[in-house]
Parts: sequence; C-alpha cells; structure tokens
Amino acid sequence: MDNQKIHMNGGDGPNSYANNSEYQKQLVGYSKIVMAELIEQELDVGIINPDCSPFCVADFGCSVGGNTYLAVQNIIEAVETKYKSNEQDQENPQLQVPEFLVFFNDLVQNDFNTLFNYIHGNKPNYFTTGIPGSFYGRVFPKAFLHFAHSSMSLLYLSRIPEEVLDRKSAAWNKGRIHYSSSGAAKEVEAAYSNQFRKDIQAFLDARAQELVPGGLMAIITLTILDGVLPSDSPMAINFTILGSCLQDMANMGIMSEEKLDSFNLPYYYTSPMELETLIKTHGCFDIVRFEKLPTPLRQVVIDVQAAVLSVRVVTEQLFQQHFGKDITEELFQRYAEKLDSHPVLKDDKYRTDASYFAFLKRKTETSKPGS
Amino acid sequence: MDNQKIHMNGGDGPNSYANNSEYQKQLVGYSKIVMAELIEQELDVGIINPDCSPFCVADFGCSVGGNTYLAVQNIIEAVETKYKSNEQDQENPQLQVPEFLVFFNDLVQNDFNTLFNYIHGNKPNYFTTGIPGSFYGRVFPKAFLHFAHSSMSLLYLSRIPEEVLDRKSAAWNKGRIHYSSSGAAKEVEAAYSNQFRKDIQAFLDARAQELVPGGLMAIITLTILDGVLPSDSPMAINFTILGSCLQDMANMGIMSEEKLDSFNLPYYYTSPMELETLIKTHGCFDIVRFEKLPTPLRQVVIDVQAAVLSVRVVTEQLFQQHFGKDITEELFQRYAEKLDSHPVLKDDKYRTDASYFAFLKRKTETSKPGS
Repeated sequence: MDNQKIHMNGGDGPNSYANNSEYQKQLVGYSKIVMAELIEQELDVGIINPDCSPFCVADFGCSVGGNTYLAVQNIIEAVETKYKSNEQDQENPQLQVPEFLVFFNDLVQNDFNTLFNYIHGNKPNYFTTGIPGSFYGRVFPKAFLHFAHSSMSLLYLSRIPEEVLDRKSAAWNKGRIHYSSSGAAKEVEAAYSNQFRKDIQAFLDARAQELVPGGLMAIITLTILDGVLPSDSPMAINFTILGSCLQDMANMGIMSEEKLDSFNLPYYYTSPMELETLIKTHGCFDIVRFEKLPTPLRQVVIDVQAAVLSVRVVTEQLFQQHFGKDITEELFQRYAEKLDSHPVLKDDKYRTDASYFAFLKRKTETSKPGS
Repeated sequence: MDNQKIHMNGGDGPNSYANNSEYQKQLVGYSKIVMAELIEQELDVGIINPDCSPFCVADFGCSVGGNTYLAVQNIIEAVETKYKSNEQDQENPQLQVPEFLVFFNDLVQNDFNTLFNYIHGNKPNYFTTGIPGSFYGRVFPKAFLHFAHSSMSLLYLSRIPEEVLDRKSAAWNKGRIHYSSSGAAKEVEAAYSNQFRKDIQAFLDARAQELVPGGLMAIITLTILDGVLPSDSPMAINFTILGSCLQDMANMGIMSEEKLDSFNLPYYYTSPMELETLIKTHGCFDIVRFEKLPTPLRQVVIDVQAAVLSVRVVTEQLFQQHFGKDITEELFQRYAEKLDSHPVLKDDKYRTDASYFAFLKRKTETSKPGS
C-alpha cells in the first residue's frame, strides 16, 4: 500500500492544518537562532555561480501553512546576512547578495492553491515555486540546490510495510492501527523501523544528488527518546485510543473487522540514536549539529478539543480515504471522550518524545549515489 | 481596477477549462512542427552550463489543462533531438542531453492543484514546478530561463484601462462590456490598445531579463487581421450579445445600471502588424519567425452549446467576481438563445480573426532593460 496520498487537511477552515499547527510553528522558532549561527559558520558563499544560478532553497514536506513560510524566511535572512558580511570582504568583491529561488515541495495531493495564496499574501522577497512529488525520490535536477529544509515530514513513511497487513505474517497488526498501539507485536515495530531505514536512505540518496557539494540541509523531526519503548510514548496513547474507538465502531457494525485490520497509520517515530546512525552510515553528509530542541508549550494540556484538533488535522485525510468521509465526525467525538478521561495530557511521565534538529553539509569528496 | 484575478474555470467538471479547450489544443498542434524546426535551427546547445544548470523551460499563462502539457512536451522533444544530434558531433563530446526543469506559470488564483494532478498523471520525463505570479512582472531570477512559451495568454490585459470606467472620459464605455462591442467609441479601443502596448512592453522587459542571452521564446496569440475593424470580429459579436443580455437583465432589475457600467472584459485582440511592431520596437529580441497559424476546426459551427461553453469557461469567473455567482446561469442561457439566432457561427464573413505564431531569440548584445 503506497502512502502517496498523505496530506494535511487543506484550505483555511476551522479543521485546517493551516490554522492548527502551532506546535510545528514553535519548533521552527526554536531552530531559528541555531540555524542562523550555523549558516554563518558553514555556508560557503562561493557555492553559487552568480553567472548562471540564483541561490536555490527547498522546503521538503511544506504542507499549506505559515510554518513553511517562516522557516524559509529564517533561512533567507541568515543567508543574506552571510552574503552581506561577505560583501565587506575586499578579497571577494564580486560576491553580492544573490537572488533567491524557493521551491515548496510536497506530495502532488497537497493543497498548493492555499499555499500559494498564503505565500503571495506575504509578498516575499524571493521567487516562489511549488514542486510536487515524493521527497523519497528525486524531485530536482542534479547539483541544483544550495539549501534543503525539512520540518516534521520525515516521520511520514513512504508506505505501510506489507507484512503489517499480511494475515500470514508475524507482523500482522490485527485490530490495531499503529506499531506503538498497546499490545502490538515486536515484529510490527521492526517492520516499521525497516521501512523507515529504507525511506531515510532514499531521502538522503536523492538530496545528495540534488544538493551541490557544500550544500546545507536542516532537518527537524519528532523522536521518541533513546531507550523508551514505543508503547510508552504519548503517540502510543493517542493511537491506542483512536484504535479502540475504531474497534468500538467495528463492534457496532459501522465498519467491518476486515476494514479495520487493513488500516495502519504511516508514522514512524525514530530515536535520536537511530536517526544519527542512519545519517552517518549513509556517508554523503557531514553532521554539523545534532541536538534536541526545547519542547513546545502544550496549550493542549488544559484543552481536550485543541488536542483532538491537533491530531485530527494531520490524520483525518488518512481515515477518510480508508473508511469513507462519513466516519470521522463520530470517530473524533469518541476520541475526545476517551482522551478526556485519560491522564496522557496532564501527566509528565508521558513526555517521552522530543524534537531533534540536524544540520548537515553535503560532502564534496564522496561519490554521488545513483549518479 | 487590477485584473489580478483572471483565471479559467478550474477543476475538471463539465464547465471546466480543462475539458473545454479543444480550440487552444489545435493551435498547439499546429505550432509543433514549425517549433521543432526552429529549435533545431536556432538553439545554441551551449547556452546551458551543465555544471550548474538544467535546461529550464517556462510556460507563461499555463492554466490547468492538457494544452500546457502538450506544448511543453513538444518543446522538450525538440530540444532533446537537438542535443542528441549534437552528441554525434565529435567536436563537442561533453554536451549530453541535459535534465529539464519545467516551470508552469499563471496567476496565483490559478487552479495549480488540478494542473499538478494532470501533469503528474502523465509521468513526464522532466522535473515539474508551478510558479505563481503575473507574467507582466518578473517571475524568475535573472538569466535563468532557456526557453519561454506562452499560448493564448497575452490577450489578457493586466488591468482594465481606468478611463473606460470614468464617466468624465470620452473613453467611458457605458452599457457595453468591451471595446469591440457595437457602438463603442473609438476612444475605448484606443485606451485598450494603449494598455496592451504597456503590457507587452512589461512582458518583454521581464522576459528579456529572465532569459539567458540566446534564449528562445515562442508566442501564440489571437489577433484580428490587419485592417479589420474590431467591431467586425467574431469576438465583437459574442461580446455585443453578452453585453445586450446583461443590459436586458439590468432593465429587469436583476442588476443595477451602475454595476453594468463598471464592468468591462480585459481582453485585447492585437493585429499582426501591431504586435510585430511592438516586438521590434522593444529591441531585446530578434524575430526569427512571425506567421499565421491555420484556423482550428470550429466544431462549434453545428453546436451552439459548445460555442457557449467555449466562451463560458474563459469568462465565467470574471462575471461572477463582478456580478456575483448567481447571475451566470441565466446570463449564459440568454446568451445561448441570442447566439442561436445570429449568423456569426455559420457565416464565413465573420472569420476575421487569426492566430499568430512568433518565435523570438533573446539578443546577446543589447543592454538588459531594468538591470
């Protein structure tokens, strides 16, 4: 099962991702200062050839909201600062602040119309394009990009591992919708982890080809801390509750057992150690920085509806595609009721997740994969 | 009044542009062979620096349908053929067929979601991006593009000339919706023509900066033949009838006279001589070819509903934005009735329009405007 249709709720209504992604916005804010420092320190202003290239930036997994705009703005300000300070350098008088061409990337099903309206409304000082396609494959020509950014996107697998849906496999995840759900077999987690390894490899392969030597890449992703069992994560609680609501609905005949058994969520929460190891093993990127970001303030602690909405905007499309449009209103109502009586929102023992920031530099001397 | 909201009917339903643009498709077909010949003859394969640039193609005014895909496909096939034949040339062994990066441009209100779904469904052999913004200003970085294409887009003015809406002006177009409408003053046409001159100047200024020296540009646009009065064109009949339907509706109180007086259609049909002169006068482009294209088969001759639909898909958004969504069903019903009893669809004396094809090359030695 290909997950080529993962996208956030579009538009700008009350259930839209655009209006319900405060958590992601805070992460972009936390990364701003460290990213500016690292751009000042690591960017080689000579990586663009001003005769035939603007400075090209891409955000992979941009979705539709203001967060991609903010992240890009932070990058461009830092790069401009670097070029401006370089202009003072008498030894390189020819290097001026370049023109910027920014590519917003997401799957073809993403709501680019909403994105474009938002970006244009902010009158950016760069040229704006949307570039549809899965970032687990090539999206750009070779040696074209100077800076790549991806925030909270690498936790979406390119597909659900086949064995998770296979009745004959030890990894069959009957009656549950995620590997972290209470009671899931170890083999389910292994299948997800294996898929993640392949996906990260594919992501890094593609970016290694698309970035110029010396090109930079910033990644933010959500992890479960080293040594924590997936089932002890806050996501596990959410997905276990959502799964039990679906099970209740199956028991009432609203959907079939088969329908439920054939559904799993395509999210994988890596650990910091797993992610760092995969990047190092890949070999095409130097890790300049790899660090934990502060935890965003959870306004949701006191507001179950906000907590429900933050899960709904990212998962609703997946439920609708599989179970039909009619079930989600009831599903999230049931979810809200069960969540309200669970301690996950209030008890700090469930704070076992953390967002990590990785700042990478494309090596100049390794062979390019696939080229 | 800025016409920043001109766009075709989106989506892919029965009233969509995507499903009602056969006329435009035939024009793209007619230009295929001559474009391939001219690319073979005029393209300098050395205009790209393969170390830092793919071959960049842009379609200006792409809309949402299959026509932009076809046009781009024709260009890319011809450029590939040129590079392949060049590969046989032992003197330039380093020049291989490059990677292609294609930019689909239209106003930010264009339905890029439908466009992206269509293009991806065809699995193109190039990298695809959408780039929103008015082509009467800069859309790309300097010296970035290698081939620009624009079909049936330059007839949309960037705005309605102010004097046409000014009660005190001799160019006030009271009770009519276009300069070609029966009874319009000469000053109305002059105001439209003046705006067109400014717009073409702005278009050529921007493209002159964005195209590399030696870069190529193909333009297809609809003209009224030299010496023909605008009021003797088939567009004049259509817009006079549409205007009279609106006048009937105003008389019935469905809309106010003021509302009608403040509406004009933003289309200008240049003459071949006017267009050629404007390009020559601009000075940044050599005209390699300037010729009349065959007239597309008008299936509409025998089918009034098809004729109505072909006008509806390009004008409906404009009527809705000004008069509200509720009036267009009635407007086009009235239009169909009046059109049915008019000889315009059947009588060849109204064939005073023609599509022209211009193939231009960015000069290498002129100064760049605005740079």
